Amino acid sequence: MLRKILVANRGEIAVRIIRACHELGIKAVAAYSEADRDSLAVRMADEAICIGPPAPAKSYLNAPALISAALISDCDAIHPGYGFLSENPYFAESCRECGLTFIGPSADSIQRMGDKALAKQAMKLAGLPLVPGTENPLTSVEEAQSLADGIGYPVLLKAVAGGGGRGMRVVNQPDELARAFNTARAEAEAAFGRGDLYMEKYLPVVRHVEIQILADQHGNAIHLGERDCSLQRRHQKVVEEGPSPALTPELRQKMGEAALHGVREIGYYNAGTMEFLLDHQGNFYFMEMNTRLQVEHPVTEWLTGLDLVKWQIRIAAGERLTLTQDDIKIRGHAIECRINAEDADRDFMPAGGTVDLYLPPGGPGVRVDSHLYSGYRTPTNYDSMLAKVIVWGETRLEAIERMRRALSECVISGITTTLPFQLRMMNEPAFVSGDVATHTLADILNQQTAKEATA
Amino acid sequence: MLRKILVANRGEIAVRIIRACHELGIKAVAAYSEADRDSLAVRMADEAICIGPPAPAKSYLNAPALISAALISDCDAIHPGYGFLSENPYFAESCRECGLTFIGPSADSIQRMGDKALAKQAMKLAGLPLVPGTENPLTSVEEAQSLADGIGYPVLLKAVAGGGGRGMRVVNQPDELARAFNTARAEAEAAFGRGDLYMEKYLPVVRHVEIQILADQHGNAIHLGERDCSLQRRHQKVVEEGPSPALTPELRQKMGEAALHGVREIGYYNAGTMEFLLDHQGNFYFMEMNTRLQVEHPVTEWLTGLDLVKWQIRIAAGERLTLTQDDIKIRGHAIECRINAEDADRDFMPAGGTVDLYLPPGGPGVRVDSHLYSGYRTPTNYDSMLAKVIVWGETRLEAIERMRRALSECVISGITTTLPFQLRMMNEPAFVSGDVATHTLADILNQQTAKEATA
Repeated sequence: MLRKILVANRGEIAVRIIRACHELGIKAVAAYSEADRDSLAVRMADEAICIGPPAPAKSYLNAPALISAALISDCDAIHPGYGFLSENPYFAESCRECGLTFIGPSADSIQRMGDKALAKQAMKLAGLPLVPGTENPLTSVEEAQSLADGIGYPVLLKAVAGGGGRGMRVVNQPDELARAFNTARAEAEAAFGRGDLYMEKYLPVVRHVEIQILADQHGNAIHLGERDCSLQRRHQKVVEEGPSPALTPELRQKMGEAALHGVREIGYYNAGTMEFLLDHQGNFYFMEMNTRLQVEHPVTEWLTGLDLVKWQIRIAAGERLTLTQDDIKIRGHAIECRINAEDADRDFMPAGGTVDLYLPPGGPGVRVDSHLYSGYRTPTNYDSMLAKVIVWGETRLEAIERMRRALSECVISGITTTLPFQLRMMNEPAFVSGDVATHTLADILNQQTAKEATA
Repeated sequence: MLRKILVANRGEIAVRIIRACHELGIKAVAAYSEADRDSLAVRMADEAICIGPPAPAKSYLNAPALISAALISDCDAIHPGYGFLSENPYFAESCRECGLTFIGPSADSIQRMGDKALAKQAMKLAGLPLVPGTENPLTSVEEAQSLADGIGYPVLLKAVAGGGGRGMRVVNQPDELARAFNTARAEAEAAFGRGDLYMEKYLPVVRHVEIQILADQHGNAIHLGERDCSLQRRHQKVVEEGPSPALTPELRQKMGEAALHGVREIGYYNAGTMEFLLDHQGNFYFMEMNTRLQVEHPVTEWLTGLDLVKWQIRIAAGERLTLTQDDIKIRGHAIECRINAEDADRDFMPAGGTVDLYLPPGGPGVRVDSHLYSGYRTPTNYDSMLAKVIVWGETRLEAIERMRRALSECVISGITTTLPFQLRMMNEPAFVSGDVATHTLADILNQQTAKEATA
C-alpha cells in the first residue's frame, strides 16, 4: 500500500483527498500556492509544502514544482484531483519517471481520451454510438461549410483539446459558420494552446448522462450507474443527480455495458467517467471520457456506498477490485448542488471576500464537501466553487425536499454565493418534474431576464 | 397533515426536529428558555417563543408554559424530543386535552412503560424473557434481603421511575445491601420524586442491545434492527453502533419479533425502543422500553435510509406505515460518538464556555447533529452534550476508520470536549475487536487511572 501522498490540488477536492488518505492510514502532504497558505487543506494535511506563487501556471500547473515537492517530502504517490494537471499525460508520465505513483489512469489513456478525435475513434471501434460528425480536425472554414451541409444544421463546433465549454459554438445556419469557426478557434487557442476544432451534429434537446466506472490494473472493471448532469449553464454543470429520471433499468444496463466496452478497448484503469448525450427516444451517444475524479463523484458515493477516492488510491497501489458488478446496488436518490462565490443576479459575476460565519448544513442525508471555515478569505486566483452540498433521499422527492432544507440552513455570510440561486433551482417546476435537458437552465434564466425587463 | 409544530426541547434534538419539519413543509416553532435565546434552534425555527427562565422546571419541564406557547403560536402539534417531558404521560394527555397532537405514543403507553414494574408485567405477558427479579416495588430492606437471597448475588437495585443510571446500584454481597438500598432510594426520590425500587439479578457480562420499532395508529408495526450501546459510563451511553457485532441474522430476527410482540401487547404506536440485555450465550432479556425518540436514532437512520423523526410526525398525524418488514434493508455499519463538554481527564467534569471556532467534519459517510456554531456560548443549566458524530461505512472497520478521521478533523475550540476521549475509544483494542460489554468502559478507565497512579 502507499505510505504518503502529495495532494496536487486545492480547495474542496484537496480536503476530499486528505480525508480518504486519513481513512486509509496514509499520510497526506498538501501542496499549496502562496495564495492558499491559510487553506483548510494545509491545516488538515500531515505536512504542507509551498509550491509557488498564486498564478496557477506557477504552482498548481507547475509539474516540476509538484514533483519536487513530492520527492522532498518523501511521498510515494501524487493525487492530482480534478482540473489543473489531472488530465495532463506528460505530468502522469513524469510522475512515473520519477518513481512516483500517479493516482489515475496511464498516461496513454489520458492522452487518447484527452484528444477528442482520438477518443471518438477508439470508442467507435469499441462499438459505442457517436453523434454524427467529423473525425479529423477541420482545416478551413470552407471544409467546415461543406461538412456542415452534409451533417445538416444545427451543428456544434468543439475544440479538440477542449473542455468546460470553451472553444465551443452552436451554429444554427450557414451564414453563422465562418464567424463561429474563427471565434471558437481563437478561444481554443487561448485556453488550451491548440486551436483545432471538430464538428458534430447539434442535438437541441438532450440530457447529459454519464456513467461512472472503476477498473483495476488486472483487467477487472465495473460501472457504478449514472449521474444526470443536464442542468448546466454555459456547458458548466450546476446540479447533478442520480439515478437519472430518464433512465429505465434496461437503458441503465445498456449504457453501463457500453461504458465498459470503452474501458476495455483502451485498457483503462482507475476511476473514470464516460459522458453521453441522451435524446428523448432513449438513444445515447458517446461524448467524451473524463480520465479523472469528477466534481460530482459524491452523488455516486451516496448511491453505492463506495468511497471512490479510496478506490482510486487502492487501484493505483495495484490492488484488485474486490467488487463485482452484482455487488453494486443503487439505493435511493442523490442530488449535488455546487455553491459558488458568484452573484446569480448579476450574470454570475464572481464574488469573494472573507467568510465571517460558516455553518454547513447537517442532520440526516446531508453531506458537505467544502474547504470553508469561519474566517476564511477566498483567494481571487482560482475558480469560484466554495462548497458542494450533496443530499440523499429514499426518493427523488425526498432528496429535493432535503436539499431545500439543507440549502436554507447553510450559512456562508460575508460573501455573495449561489445558495439562493440553487434554492430557486430546487423549486423550479422543470427541475422538480425531472424533465430537464441541457438547454433548460438557459431557458429558465432567459425567462427570468425577460420578466425583469418587463417589470 | 400537521401544519405547525412546537419543538418542546433544546440543543441538538431541537435542531433535528426543525430539520424534519422543514423537509415535510411544516412550520417549526422553537420553545426556548432565557438561557437559550441565542441558540441555533431559535435561529433555524420559523418562529420562537420564550417559555421561561433557565431552570428546567420553569421552562422545558413546565408543561402549562409549553402548551400555552403552542396554542398562542397556532401550532397543531408538539414534539417533545427526548428527556424533559418526552416520557411524561400527564404532558401527553394535557396536549391532547388542549387539542394538540402529541408526537409520540399514547399517554397510556408512556404510563405503562414508564413504570418499570408495570412494563415488566406487560412484557412478560407478551412472552418476552425477563431478568429474574421482583415484580413489585420493594417495601423494606428486610424484604430486599430475603428476595436477594432467593435470586442470588450479585443483584441490581433500580428505581421504578428511573432512567439514566440514577437510583441504580449493583450489590455484590449481603452486607452491602442495606446501604445500597437507602442511597438508591434517596437518589430516586431526589431525581424522580418517587423512591420506589425493584430488584433483579445482576448479569455481570452483558451487552446492551436495543431494537428500534415503528408502529402506526392502525395496527401496523415493523422493527428496524438493533443498536448496540454497550460502551457505557455509569449507565450512560457513550458510543452506539449498528449492527451489533454480537448478533447473528437469526438472533436479530428473534429479538425483532420479540420487540414486536411487546408493541402489540400494549397497542403501542409511534417510534419506540425495546432495550435488552444480551449475554454471551445469545440469551436476551427485556430491560425497558423507551417510549420516545432516542439520542442514538441516527445510527438506525444511516442503516435503513429512513428518517425516524419524519416518520414520528407522519404517524402522529394519523398516516399509515407504507413500509413492510421486508422493505427494511440494513446496509453497512454505523457508529455514533457523543461529544460532550466534559474533561475526560478529570473524571468527566462538566466544562463550558464560548466556542471560538466550530468546524464539523464533512465528506463521505459523516453526519453531524449539533446545535453549535462559531461564537456559541454554552449555557450551564443543561446536559453537556454538544454534538453527535455519526458515521457510516461499508464494514465495521471502515466505519471505525471513518470515525477516527471525522473526530480528528472536528474543530470545537474554546471549550474542553470529549473529542480526544472518543478518538481514544476508536483506537481501544476492546472496542475495535467488537467484544464489548457494559462493564468494558469502566475497565478501560480503571486501567488508565491505575497506570497514571503508577507513573
